[in-house]
Amino acid sequence: MSQLIYEGKAKKVWSEANAAQVRVEFKNSLTAFNALKKGEFAGKGAVNCEITCLLFDHLKKQGIETHLIKKISPTEIVVDKLTMIPLEVVVRNILAGSTAKKFGIEEGRRLDRPLLELFYKDDALQDPFVNDEQVLILGYVTAPELEACKKAALAINAALLPLFAKIGIDLVDFKLEFGKNAAGKVVLGDEITPDCCRLWDRQTNEKLDKDRFRRDLGKVDESYHEVLNRLKKELGQ
Amino acid sequence: MSQLIYEGKAKKVWSEANAAQVRVEFKNSLTAFNALKKGEFAGKGAVNCEITCLLFDHLKKQGIETHLIKKISPTEIVVDKLTMIPLEVVVRNILAGSTAKKFGIEEGRRLDRPLLELFYKDDALQDPFVNDEQVLILGYVTAPELEACKKAALAINAALLPLFAKIGIDLVDFKLEFGKNAAGKVVLGDEITPDCCRLWDRQTNEKLDKDRFRRDLGKVDESYHEVLNRLKKELGQ
Repeated sequence: MSQLIYEGKAKKVWSEANAAQVRVEFKNSLTAFNALKKGEFAGKGAVNCEITCLLFDHLKKQGIETHLIKKISPTEIVVDKLTMIPLEVVVRNILAGSTAKKFGIEEGRRLDRPLLELFYKDDALQDPFVNDEQVLILGYVTAPELEACKKAALAINAALLPLFAKIGIDLVDFKLEFGKNAAGKVVLGDEITPDCCRLWDRQTNEKLDKDRFRRDLGKVDESYHEVLNRLKKELGQ
Repeated sequence: MSQLIYEGKAKKVWSEANAAQVRVEFKNSLTAFNALKKGEFAGKGAVNCEITCLLFDHLKKQGIETHLIKKISPTEIVVDKLTMIPLEVVVRNILAGSTAKKFGIEEGRRLDRPLLELFYKDDALQDPFVNDEQVLILGYVTAPELEACKKAALAINAALLPLFAKIGIDLVDFKLEFGKNAAGKVVLGDEITPDCCRLWDRQTNEKLDKDRFRRDLGKVDESYHEVLNRLKKELGQ
């Protein structure tokens, strides 16, 4: 019998008969501000599941390894079971959100090169922003693991930027999570969806991501579907 | 006539006849929590001025350049005018303060190697904690400047750790500020005092620094003098 291993804010993780794999179920819930704000919309799990599969398949074609094995229902994927690295790796191409605020800079400044940021993944500590040396010296990650995460994050950014540009979207920033597979290799886990990206329409500057929920901008559902539809059209599915 | 160029929380900076130099006056005021908490004690300016001179002279003997030229009164030094780099460089040998709290770790963990942290110096932004890439990409510091700051911070730590150990004090952590001199070289500026260090007695673990003021532990005045007296005895002055 499949057992619930973990329930997060937007996903459930279930055991599989093959102990080297797990099943990920995308939920309809939306949360923000460390889950202080909660919401949901019907079909959100399916949209995010489909976007993640499209993007992870695209990354695979670019030679970037992910945990994805296969999609088994509109809201479920089977993936390699990873030993997760307790970091959120954020890549920024355009300044927005917490980093824009921290430096007192208006959102929208295009950066000369991608900016990497690390957050230590711990709900009780509210996922604090950290530097490399903190997580290395405190032993939360090894130097080779951290290097692999950073290198992969930049490769993923380089693969996704032109894809989103083609569908008229600026990939402003996004959050990745990595883990080690059975072979000990660091690969991309988790998801890539409008929940953890900032996506701005290049014509209108309209936000097509979770900021619509965070900032009560309306049309959350429509924006997530808009991203999915443009990706499906571009990727021929 | 000497003109007030800048007044900070603990020091005033005055112009000198020689435009390549400035005069720094140490004040009796004490502040904490971005100046939300204020205090002072008589003689504090003189104690901090003397501690800074003793430590900067010691660093000079170890081949580490600082802005200090000479002491001209109990509370005043003349220094090279620097173009300051807008960073606070923190070195930690033992976990305490904001970083211990951030990771939910009890104060007092000895680190395997010194931990460097950067804070972007901007009062209005409350001196936010930053990573290397943020300040490089946003153009607040150049890569060679940042490398020079980090290298110097580690050299200063290596010079001060044994000195404090000899006088029975654990150098828990401290904050440094650097600037470029007329020759374009990055040198140590500002001060090194119990205002910007954590200093714990190695026998009793008693705090001998600004945490006595921050945390209302009493004996602030006595602790600053204790540090000065031990340094004077060790350094033969």
